[in-house]
Amino acid sequence: MKIGIVGLGLMGGSLALSLRKLSFVSKIYGLDHNTDHQKEALRLKLVDNIIDFDELCTLDVIVLAIPVNGVITSLQALEGKITETTTIIDLGSTKEAIIQAVPPSIRKNFVAAHPMTGTEQSGPGAALAGLYNDQVVVLCDLEESGTLQQETAVRIFSGIHMRLSYMHAHEHDRHAAFISHMPHVISYSIANSVLSQEDRYNILAMAAGGFRSMSRLAKSSPDMWEDIFKQNKTNLLDAIETFQNELEHFKKEIKNDEWQEVRKKMLMGNKLDQIFS
Amino acid sequence: MKIGIVGLGLMGGSLALSLRKLSFVSKIYGLDHNTDHQKEALRLKLVDNIIDFDELCTLDVIVLAIPVNGVITSLQALEGKITETTTIIDLGSTKEAIIQAVPPSIRKNFVAAHPMTGTEQSGPGAALAGLYNDQVVVLCDLEESGTLQQETAVRIFSGIHMRLSYMHAHEHDRHAAFISHMPHVISYSIANSVLSQEDRYNILAMAAGGFRSMSRLAKSSPDMWEDIFKQNKTNLLDAIETFQNELEHFKKEIKNDEWQEVRKKMLMGNKLDQIFS
Repeated sequence: MKIGIVGLGLMGGSLALSLRKLSFVSKIYGLDHNTDHQKEALRLKLVDNIIDFDELCTLDVIVLAIPVNGVITSLQALEGKITETTTIIDLGSTKEAIIQAVPPSIRKNFVAAHPMTGTEQSGPGAALAGLYNDQVVVLCDLEESGTLQQETAVRIFSGIHMRLSYMHAHEHDRHAAFISHMPHVISYSIANSVLSQEDRYNILAMAAGGFRSMSRLAKSSPDMWEDIFKQNKTNLLDAIETFQNELEHFKKEIKNDEWQEVRKKMLMGNKLDQIFS
Repeated sequence: MKIGIVGLGLMGGSLALSLRKLSFVSKIYGLDHNTDHQKEALRLKLVDNIIDFDELCTLDVIVLAIPVNGVITSLQALEGKITETTTIIDLGSTKEAIIQAVPPSIRKNFVAAHPMTGTEQSGPGAALAGLYNDQVVVLCDLEESGTLQQETAVRIFSGIHMRLSYMHAHEHDRHAAFISHMPHVISYSIANSVLSQEDRYNILAMAAGGFRSMSRLAKSSPDMWEDIFKQNKTNLLDAIETFQNELEHFKKEIKNDEWQEVRKKMLMGNKLDQIFS
C-alpha cells in the first residue's frame, strides 16, 4: 500500500513515523506547500519522497493532515483525479462542514477521521513516534464511505494502535467543541488576561505547573485554529456560553460568600478524578 | 535544627523529604489532625516522630503546611507559647490576610512564604522528593520578620534549591490571583461545563491531552481552595472579571466573523512560548 501524506506537520509527520512500522505500507510519500517543511521531513526521514499533486492522485491512500479549510479545498481539487479504489482520509478537528463539502462523486472514496491527540507544537520537528498510540480516533458517518475505504481506514488506524470510535459528524462537532475547541479559546484568554497586565513579567515569574497547564494550549497554531473556529462556530459559541454561565455562577457565589455552593462546584469538578483514572 | 511540620499532605510531606537531605536539620517532626495521615507519614518515613502541640512549641522551626484559614488559627494558638528564637514559616497561597492576623507579639517569629509549586493531588501519599527543587518561593514583607528568622527561612529554602523572590503581600496576592487562583476557578468551571451535559460520558470519552491539561486543577482539594478563595476574594474577583472580559471579546469576534481580531488574540497568546522557554 502506497500512502501520501498532505501536510508534514505535527499530525502528518507523526503519522508517517507510525506508518513506517506497518508491514502492509510499502512506501510513504509527502506533500507540503512549505518547502522548508519538505526538506525537514526528508532530513528527519519522515517520508521516502516528496511528490507533486498529480503523483499523489495515483496512490492507494491520501491522508489530508492540514488545516480544515485546506481539507475542503483539497477534496474539491481531488474530484475527477482519483480512481474508485483510492482512499482519502482527513485528520481534521471538525467533521460536519468537511463532509458536507465532499464532492458527491468522490464521497465513497472519503473517510472522515479525527484522531484525538496532538500537542501545542507544530511543524515536522514536532513529530512524535508515539503520538497516535493508544489514543482515540473518531470516524464519522462511516456508512457513507465505500466498503474498501472503510476497511482501509480501520486497518490503518488499528495498525497504529488507535482506539476506534464511531459517531455522526454532528455529534462529533458538538462534543469536540466542549472537549477541545472551547478549552482552546479559554486558554488563549487566560494567557491574554495575564499578558495584558502592566506587571505581566512579575506575574509570569510566579507561574508554576498550574498556570503552565492552563496556558499551554495558547501556544497553538493560529493557522490551524482559525479554520476550526470558523467551521465549528455554532457549536463553539454554545460551548463558550455554557462555560460562561458556569463561571458567572461560580463568581457570584464567591462574591456573595455562598461557600456551600462553591464547595459543591469544587466537589463536582473533583469527580473527573474518577473518570480519568 | 529541629523542625516540626504541621500538615503532612502534599506540601508538608514533600518538604519533609527535601529537608532530610540538609545536614543542618537534625530531626523532623510532624503534626496532623488526621490520624490516618499521621500513620501514613510515619510509614512513608516522611517524619521521624509524630508530636503534640506542646512539643511543637519547643522546636527551632515550625512550618505550617495547612489550609490558609488553619494557618491563621495556628498562629493565634502559638502566641505566648514560643520563645524569641522560634521561627514559624507558613506555606500558604495567600499572604495579606495571614500577615494581618499574626499576633504582634510573635510577628518577628513569623516568615510568610509561598512556594510556587504543587500538584492537584493531596495527602502524604502525594509527597514528592523533588517538588520544591528549582521552583520559586515568594517571601513576603520579609523586613518585618526578625533577623534570625529571615536567615533561617533563607537557609532552608536555599538549602532545598528554591529560587527566592521577595514581594509585598499585597502585590503577591494580586499576582497569585492571576497566575493561580483564577485559573483554578476556570478549571473547575470547564470540568463542570462538561459534567453538566447530558451526554457527558460520550464527550469525556473524546478527551485528550488538551482537555486533561485544562481540567487537571479541577481535581484540587476543596478544603484548601475554599480558604484561598475566601482570603483572596477581592483580587480573585478582579482577575476573574479581567478574564471574563477577554473571553467575551474573543467570543464576540468569533460570532461577528472578525477573524483578523481573532488571529491577533491567538498570536498574542503564542507569545507565552517566548516567555516560558
